[in-house]
Formats: sequence, C-alpha cells, structure tokens
Amino acid sequence: MEDLTVEKTEWPKPGLMGFTVERVSALSDGVFAVAITLLVVSIAVPTIHGTVTNSKLAHGLAEIWPHFFSYFLSFIIIAMFWISHHALFSAIRRVDRTLIWINMLYLLLIVFMPYPTELLSLFGKTMVATVLYASVLAVAGILQAAMAFYATRGHRLVDDEFEMSQAGEYLRNSLLMSAVFIISIGIAFVSVTAAQFFWLTLFVIQLLERFVFGKKQRSKPAAEIQEAG
Amino acid sequence: MEDLTVEKTEWPKPGLMGFTVERVSALSDGVFAVAITLLVVSIAVPTIHGTVTNSKLAHGLAEIWPHFFSYFLSFIIIAMFWISHHALFSAIRRVDRTLIWINMLYLLLIVFMPYPTELLSLFGKTMVATVLYASVLAVAGILQAAMAFYATRGHRLVDDEFEMSQAGEYLRNSLLMSAVFIISIGIAFVSVTAAQFFWLTLFVIQLLERFVFGKKQRSKPAAEIQEAG
Amino acid sequence: MEDLTVEKTEWPKPGLMGFTVERVSALSDGVFAVAITLLVVSIAVPTIHGTVTNSKLAHGLAEIWPHFFSYFLSFIIIAMFWISHHALFSAIRRVDRTLIWINMLYLLLIVFMPYPTELLSLFGKTMVATVLYASVLAVAGILQAAMAFYATRGHRLVDDEFEMSQAGEYLRNSLLMSAVFIISIGIAFVSVTAAQFFWLTLFVIQLLERFVFGKKQRSKPAAEIQEAG
Amino acid sequence: MEDLTVEKTEWPKPGLMGFTVERVSALSDGVFAVAITLLVVSIAVPTIHGTVTNSKLAHGLAEIWPHFFSYFLSFIIIAMFWISHHALFSAIRRVDRTLIWINMLYLLLIVFMPYPTELLSLFGKTMVATVLYASVLAVAGILQAAMAFYATRGHRLVDDEFEMSQAGEYLRNSLLMSAVFIISIGIAFVSVTAAQFFWLTLFVIQLLERFVFGKKQRSKPAAEIQEAG
Repeated sequence: MEDLTVEKTEWPKPGLMGFTVERVSALSDGVFAVAITLLVVSIAVPTIHGTVTNSKLAHGLAEIWPHFFSYFLSFIIIAMFWISHHALFSAIRRVDRTLIWINMLYLLLIVFMPYPTELLSLFGKTMVATVLYASVLAVAGILQAAMAFYATRGHRLVDDEFEMSQAGEYLRNSLLMSAVFIISIGIAFVSVTAAQFFWLTLFVIQLLERFVFGKKQRSKPAAEIQEAG
Repeated sequence: MEDLTVEKTEWPKPGLMGFTVERVSALSDGVFAVAITLLVVSIAVPTIHGTVTNSKLAHGLAEIWPHFFSYFLSFIIIAMFWISHHALFSAIRRVDRTLIWINMLYLLLIVFMPYPTELLSLFGKTMVATVLYASVLAVAGILQAAMAFYATRGHRLVDDEFEMSQAGEYLRNSLLMSAVFIISIGIAFVSVTAAQFFWLTLFVIQLLERFVFGKKQRSKPAAEIQEAG
Repeated sequence: MEDLTVEKTEWPKPGLMGFTVERVSALSDGVFAVAITLLVVSIAVPTIHGTVTNSKLAHGLAEIWPHFFSYFLSFIIIAMFWISHHALFSAIRRVDRTLIWINMLYLLLIVFMPYPTELLSLFGKTMVATVLYASVLAVAGILQAAMAFYATRGHRLVDDEFEMSQAGEYLRNSLLMSAVFIISIGIAFVSVTAAQFFWLTLFVIQLLERFVFGKKQRSKPAAEIQEAG
Repeated sequence: MEDLTVEKTEWPKPGLMGFTVERVSALSDGVFAVAITLLVVSIAVPTIHGTVTNSKLAHGLAEIWPHFFSYFLSFIIIAMFWISHHALFSAIRRVDRTLIWINMLYLLLIVFMPYPTELLSLFGKTMVATVLYASVLAVAGILQAAMAFYATRGHRLVDDEFEMSQAGEYLRNSLLMSAVFIISIGIAFVSVTAAQFFWLTLFVIQLLERFVFGKKQRSKPAAEIQEAG
C-alpha cells in the first residue's frame, strides 16, 4: 500500500473538546468485556421434572450441548476480534469523529452477538440462524478493515514511522475473517452443518498466522530488535 | 459567552480525599458500556411452535422487527451522548462534588435507557411509550448542557486557555439534542409515527455538524495547528 | 485521631508480584458500574392484556411505581458509596492483601444490591424486605469505615503528608451512613413506611455536608491553595 | 526454578501493532467485574402466593438459602482468582499472542462461572453439579499456572530483575487451588456434601499463606525495602 497524499486529521489545541485514544479504548474494552460475559446468560438451565437425580441432570445438560458449543464459538470469535482491535488501536495515536463512528458501528455488531448466539443455540439447524450469525461477523470484519484503512491511509491517525506494510497485512487478515463468514453463507444454502464446520477455518488461519508470524519475527535483524527494547 | 467572575473550585492538597477526572471518566465509561450492551437483552427471541423451519424463524424475526429498530436507535443515540460526554470531559481538568452529582443524575438516565427502549419495542405504537422515551433523552441532554455550563462558567473546572466559544458551541449542540426530543413530545400528541420519524432529525444534525465542523477546521491558520502537534 | 506506631506495609521491589492501586480502583469501578446498571433489569415491564392502549400502559406503569422508586433510591445510594470509595482511594498510595480483602467484601455487598432492590420493588411493604435492604447498606458503610481506618491508621497506606483529621471526618461520615440504616431497622419494627422515609435523612446529611464542606474550603489560606495547583 | 535458555519474546517497534499489558489488564478487569456481578442475577426471587406477609417472605428467603451460599462462595473464589491474576500481571512487562490466548481461555472459564453457580444453587445436592463446578475452577487454576509458567520461564515476559523464586511460589499456590478442586471431584463420588465442605480448605490455605507471607516480609533486610520506595 503506497502512501498517497491524504489530508491528515489536524487537532485543535490538546484537551479542548478533543478526543482521546484512551477513552475510546476504555469504552471499547468495556463493551467487549460485557458482550463476552453476556454470552453466558444465553445458556439455558436444564428444566428437570420431579426429583432431581444425577442422570436426569446429566441428560438435561447433554441435551443443551448446542448452547455450550455456541458459547464457546462466540467467545473465541469475539476474543479474536478483540485481539485485532487491540492490535489496531496500539498503532493509533489520534482519533477523530469518523474513526469513532466506524468504531461505534463495529461495537454495535459486537454487542449484538449474544443475540445471534442465542438463536444459534436454539435454532442451530436452520439456515436462517446460521446466515444471520455469519452476516453479523462478516460485516464486523469489514468495519474493522475500514477502520484500519481509514486510520493508516496517508498515516492519517498513526505515527509517521508506522510501516504501511503492517497495515496491508492487517487489512488482509480482517478481510480474510470476513471472507470465511461470507463463504459460509453461500455454503449454508447447501448445508447448514457444512457452513458451521467451515467457521473452524478461522482457527486454522489463526494457527497458520502464528506460525508464519513467528518465522518472520525470528528472521528480523538483531539491531532493530535491540532498539525496540 | 463572556467570562464572568465565578468562584473557581479550589482544591485541597492533591491526593488527599480529592476527586480525579480519571475515575469519574472510568465509571462513566463503564456505565455507558454496560447500558449500551444491556440493550441487546431487550430483543426478544421469537417463540416458535412445533418443528422449527426456516420460514417460521424468518417470519418470527420479521414480526419482532420493532425490537431491532429500537435497539439500533437507542445504540446510536447513546453513542452520540457518549461522544459528547467524552468531548466535554477531555476539556475538564478538575472535578468537584457538584459536577460529580450532575454527572451521576445524567448517568442515572443513560442507565435507565434499556427500560424505555424495551417499552418502545413492545408498545411502540402508543403515545405513552414514545413520550417516556423522548422525555428521558430530553432531560439527559439538559443535564449534559448543565454539566458543560457548570464546568466552563468562569473557567471553573477547565484550563485557563480554554476558549469559551467552544463551550457555547457545545451548549448549543446539547440543547439542540434536547430540543429535538421536546418537540417530538409535542408531535406525539398528534401522531406517534411522525414523532418517531422526527428523531431522525438528530442524524441529519450530526451530519450537518460534521460538514460545518470540517470546514472550520480546514480554515484554521497553520501556525496554531503546528503548535497543537 | 492521633498517629500511633503502626507497622507500615512494606513492599517488595516494585512490579514483582505486587498490587497496584490502579487495578484495585479499576475493578471497583467496573463492579460499581455493572451493579448500578443491573438495577434497571429489576424494573418489571407492565403486562398488558388485549389491545395495547395509552390508558392501559399508563395504568400499568403507574402500578409498578415502587419499582421506579427503588431504582432511583438504590442508584443514588450506590452513587454515594462510589463517591466515598473514590474519595478514599484518591488518598491511598499503596494496597496490601488486607485492604484488598476488605474491599472485596465491601464490593460483595455493593454487587448484591440489585437483589434487595428487587425485593423492595416487589415486597416493599414488608418489614423483612426493608430490614434486609437496610442491613446490607449498614454493613457496607461499616466496611467502608474499616477500610478507611485500616488504610490511614499510622499512615499505613497513605502519604506521610496525609492529614489525619481528614480520616476522622471520613470515618464519621461513613459511620453516619451506617447509623441511618441501623436506626431505620429499629424503626421498621414499628412502621415500614417510616423506616423508608428515614432513609431520606441521607440526602439531608449530604446537603448539610456540602454546605459545611463548602464553608471550610473557602476559609483555607490562599498560600496552601496556590501550592496545591 | 532455574533460569534456562528460553527464547524471549521480541517486539517490533513499540506502538506498531503491538500488544500492551494495560489493555489486556483492562479487558480482564472488565470481564472479572461483570462475571462477579452477574452472579447476583442467579439468585432467585422467592415466589409468594396470595397476600405477601413477613413470615411468607422470610420463609421464602430461607428456602432459597443455597442460592445465597453459592453466590457467596463463587464471589470469594472469583475474588481469589482476580487477586492472583492481578499479582501475576503486576510482574508482567510485555504480552504476546500466546499469553493473550492463555488469558482468554482462562477468562472464558471465569465468565462461565455464573452458570455452574446457578446449577449449584438449583441442583446443589447432585454430584453432577458439584463435579462441573469443581472442574471449571480446577482448569482455571491450571491455566493460571500455565500463564505464570509461560510468562516467567527464562524471564520471557518479565523484568530481568524478576526473582524466579517468586514464580515458583506463585505456581505452587495456583496448582494448590486446582488440587483442592480436583481432590473434591474424587470426594464428590463418595459424598457431595463432603466435597463442598472440602472447598473451604481454600480459605484455610489463604489464611495460612497470609501468615507465612507476613512472616517472610518482616524478615526482609531494611536496605532492600528502602530501595523499593
């Protein structure tokens, strides 16, 4: 991604009705923390008729296993989004109204996640629930890429030393996450189970990334690492 | 707004039973984050009788569309309030008991929002639900203006370099938000639908502001921007 | 309160398995923010049979007014506790395991508040609900006083310049809050309504404090204020 | 624990798509705060038929005492975990993807706690609920030990001055917590009540630790304490 002439966001005197990266991060962390915790509310407690016995309870829990699966899946996916958000904001030095609004729409989708998660728990075998779940995450991934693009384009909201190659890598990863969900929507029209299995590709990508990222890091010249302290 | 002789809030030695802007911001961010996330709890899960099919689920979701509309509307409005709160507190350098209490009453209304949102989802066609919703937000806007007025009057809680013209602009915007909701209450007595449509004026104002604000920024002398670095 | 010889809490090298005031404050703020927000969940949505009309909804809302009263009351009381907590922690420079545990038990009661609030909404005319509500807050006030006592005794966890007279004032205020609730428990055995009205004494105290506090501040020598900058 | 040659995590230039200890702590604190607060939601409100009287309400509350017990137990245990997490992260200077993911899986279990707590409230006399409760906490303790091991091994993510003896002590404590829960699972096959009583060992350990830790601290040379300032 080459560095074009983009009008950088300028700031009024600091502290006068300005915005701070810290509070945007703080609100985002709060929202992520609550959204990730509300997921547990969607796990139903098994209803047991008559005397409670171990076998009845075990049976009841076994029956609601899709709830545990949805909980686990949504937790890990939201965690992935949080890690990406964290990585992006660690590079951002300034925020402006446009970035805040893209971030807000992105958070709107993250906060919404407990709802499609609950639908997936209850109606997981339907195409409708599967497509809704995948759509929300696909759009979230696109908004994340949009944030990264907006913030780094022409070093608008990042340091001048920011390496644009990192932005390219970040965009690729965000859009790859979206792509997985968009493709799964297509698959869902044929087979809902296949679509849901396809989501696991995300974990494979994550592991591959780690492997590749790990290799790159190791090959960095020692001088640069020293200086990073 | 001219700078009158107002008794500035003085402080005991720092750290001795004093209040910090940081913790007031932290509590406020936490409250906003939870309030904005609890909205999703108010979206009902469609009840489906008999075998679950795609058409039944799609039909069920279509039936509860007012829930999605309320969720979206409240999220965006709370986001607007958070952005205003953030802008105000970025200018505030000190807090005192009066400001904390105005802020608390303001947060009381923000935290209350999931309730009128749920009423709007369930009984959106009634004047009562519409008026309640608009009233809470009208008062929140007035309290926000009160906070800004109290904090900036005579540079009570802001830096000496704080430009009072900004306070005027801020007050105008906060009261404009309140005005939209107050006017909508009047409209609701004639037509509930018209009142709810009138709320969309807020988004128009937001866009106009951005346009005007953007123009102002561009015309700032380069020297001042340089110094802001 | 005179300064006795108390063993001050000493610290291992900074950053090595130590505790920080920042994270204890952050957890406390998070807990307060969620507790204060969960209160709204306890407000019931009116059940309406047949067609929804304005008069039915207005009537339904009027019927659940004790819910609104409980919400408002608990919000203001938790806000008072938060302000006290904030004031105390702004003076604390170090934390140790004992303080963290007193704080945890204190937060246990704050977090519990949505439950007695809900009981008060549902069964507000009973002595049992009234006494439970008052008891939780009475103990919370005592724990707050205990924290202040432990932290300031012999300047254990505060700066050496910390004025002990402030600690005395703080303890008086915390115990006064507890006293209001303890006395109200006694009153509840005679009249539940009287006991609940007695809680309003808290607001009167708050206003008196402000008035007295305001007068004290004004009479401070200018030199000291200058230095506080 | 001797210091082996482990490849330390190196970092790209600071601020460029890096991770910060601050935001990982902030998310963790948020998650802990919400999880600890959601526990209260699991306490059932007693259902009362006919006119509400004091004796009926008192009776109703007495009947749900296991809910209060579970709430109290889970609150204290999550508080213990938070304190350990806090202690560990106060020593951590850098974070990498591996640590973040171990932390996420650990938080997944903390966030899940309101669910087994609710099961314990409702079906506390069954082995299934008891074993599930203990299992979640046993795994959480192991993940906490894994985090400490990963972070301190070869001073990977801690300061060079970090004393490895502290890491050993920390690991011992984390695994001791897990051990209590693992042993209780075995006991639960014989007696559920005995298993639940066995959990109280944790509080005994906590008190013993304090006593031992207190003694150690007192015997530190004054010079070192001075320097810690």
